[in-house]
Amino acid sequence: MADIESQIKILKDLIPKFLPGHSVDCVIFGYEDKELKVLLLNWKQMDIWALPGGFIFKDESMDDAAQRVLEERTGLSSIFLKQFHTFGKIQRSDHSQQEHHKKIMALMKPSKQDRKIVIDWFDHRFITTGYFALTDIRKATPRPDFLSEKCEWKSVSELPELIIDHAEIIQQAMHQLKIQLNYLPIGISLLPEKFTMIDLQKLYEAILGRPLERSNFQRKILKLGFLDRHEKLMSGAANKAPYLYSFNSTKYEELLEEGIGFRY
Amino acid sequence: MADIESQIKILKDLIPKFLPGHSVDCVIFGYEDKELKVLLLNWKQMDIWALPGGFIFKDESMDDAAQRVLEERTGLSSIFLKQFHTFGKIQRSDHSQQEHHKKIMALMKPSKQDRKIVIDWFDHRFITTGYFALTDIRKATPRPDFLSEKCEWKSVSELPELIIDHAEIIQQAMHQLKIQLNYLPIGISLLPEKFTMIDLQKLYEAILGRPLERSNFQRKILKLGFLDRHEKLMSGAANKAPYLYSFNSTKYEELLEEGIGFRY
Repeated sequence: MADIESQIKILKDLIPKFLPGHSVDCVIFGYEDKELKVLLLNWKQMDIWALPGGFIFKDESMDDAAQRVLEERTGLSSIFLKQFHTFGKIQRSDHSQQEHHKKIMALMKPSKQDRKIVIDWFDHRFITTGYFALTDIRKATPRPDFLSEKCEWKSVSELPELIIDHAEIIQQAMHQLKIQLNYLPIGISLLPEKFTMIDLQKLYEAILGRPLERSNFQRKILKLGFLDRHEKLMSGAANKAPYLYSFNSTKYEELLEEGIGFRY
Repeated sequence: MADIESQIKILKDLIPKFLPGHSVDCVIFGYEDKELKVLLLNWKQMDIWALPGGFIFKDESMDDAAQRVLEERTGLSSIFLKQFHTFGKIQRSDHSQQEHHKKIMALMKPSKQDRKIVIDWFDHRFITTGYFALTDIRKATPRPDFLSEKCEWKSVSELPELIIDHAEIIQQAMHQLKIQLNYLPIGISLLPEKFTMIDLQKLYEAILGRPLERSNFQRKILKLGFLDRHEKLMSGAANKAPYLYSFNSTKYEELLEEGIGFRY
C-alpha cells in the first residue's frame, strides 16, 4: 500500500490548489458487441464502482478539468466531451454513513495530519458537473487512478453498484445522449472510421434502447448528408455487400452550427 | 445609504452560511408586445445591468437556491425553472479591474472588518449555474435586490451593457430555449391562460427569431394534442373570430415523459 500512501501525500499537497466544493464526473461512453458501455473504476478492496472524476484546479477552467480526467483515464484527448448537468442536491455527498466511504478512508491510512486534510476534503459537500464523452472503445486504453485497481467498460444495461449518486448521473447522461441524438449524429464517434449502415443503425438502437425501421433510418440519415460513401464491404456476394460509409466532419460542423437534426 | 450598510452587515453574517465558490444566475424570460424579454437588475449609481442571482446556503440544494432567487425577484413560485448550463471559465469572475466592480465595492462602504469579509467573498472565483425561467409577465412583480435600484424587463434583441459574462449566460439560455422548443411547447407558460393560435405563433417566432408558416405551424401544434379549444374570441365578424385555446397540462406531462416534440 506504499503507493497509496505516497499518493495521499500528493493529494494532500494538491488540495489547497483545488477549488473547494466543486468536482467533475465523466460519463465516458463506448460501444462494443452491439452494446452501449460506460467506463467505470472499481475501488480497491471494495465491490463498488465509480465514475472517473476529479477536482478543478484554481487556475483551470471546469471544461479543462473534465478533459484532463478523460485523458488520464482513457489516454484519449480532443474527443467529443460535453457538459450535460450539474448535480447540486444537499444529500449527494452525505456518504459519511456509507460502508464504502469508511473503507476508503481506512484504506488511505495517511499520517494523522494528512488524514485530517484529506478526510475534511472528502467530507465536504460537493456540487458536481457531469460531462459525457463518446469514445471509440478500440482506441481507448482504460487506466485506473490511484484509488482504484480496475478501470473497465460496463454495459449500461447491467450496471454494478455505484457510489453515492453516480447511477443517477449515468441515467441523466443517457437521457441527454438520447435527446442530442435527435439533433446530431453524435453517436458516430463511437464507431470505427468506416462502417456500414447497419452498424450505424445498431448503434442508434443501442443508445435509444428501441429498434428502428431500416429503410426509414437509412433514408433519414443519408438525407442529412454528413456521410461519405466508400467501397463495398466485401465478404460474400458482391450484389449483397453493403457500402462502407465514413463521417464527414465538415458537414457535421455545419449541422452543429445550424442546430439541424432529425427524429426517428 | 443606511439601508445598504445594514444590508452589508446582513450579508457579512450570511457569507459563512453559503457554499463557497458557487452561485446561481436566473435568466427569467417574459413575453410582452410580441417581444421576448428578460428580467434584469440595474445596479445603484451605475449604468450596468445584471441577472438576478445569488448564493447557495450550505443546507440548501442548488435548485432551491435558484427557486428562491426567482421568487425574491418576481414574487412568483412554482413556475417553470430549468438548469441549462454551468459556467466554469477561470476568467469569468475576474472583475477586479472592472470599473463597476470597484464602484460597487466603494458603494458598499462597510466597516473595515465587514468590508474585508465581503470583498474577499466577491473577489473569489465563482462557478455559476444558469437557470432559465418562463414567466407570465402580467403576473410577475419585479423587485430590485439590495444592491440594485431597478428591476426591469428588457428586450432580448436590445440588451443593455451587462456585468462580467451575463451577456453570454443570456445567449446560452436563448440557445437552450430554442432547442427545447423543438421538443416541448415550454413557451406556453409565457402566455395568459387563454390565447389564440396567432398569439402562440407570434411567441414561437419571438423565441426562434424567425417567421413561421401559419397553416403549417397550426397543423403541427394541434397534432401534438396538448391544447384544449374553447369559445371564439369575439371582436369582429363571428366567422373570422379566432378560437381561444388553453394548455392541457396533463397531456403536456405525458409529452414530457415520452420526450416527444416536433420541429418547425
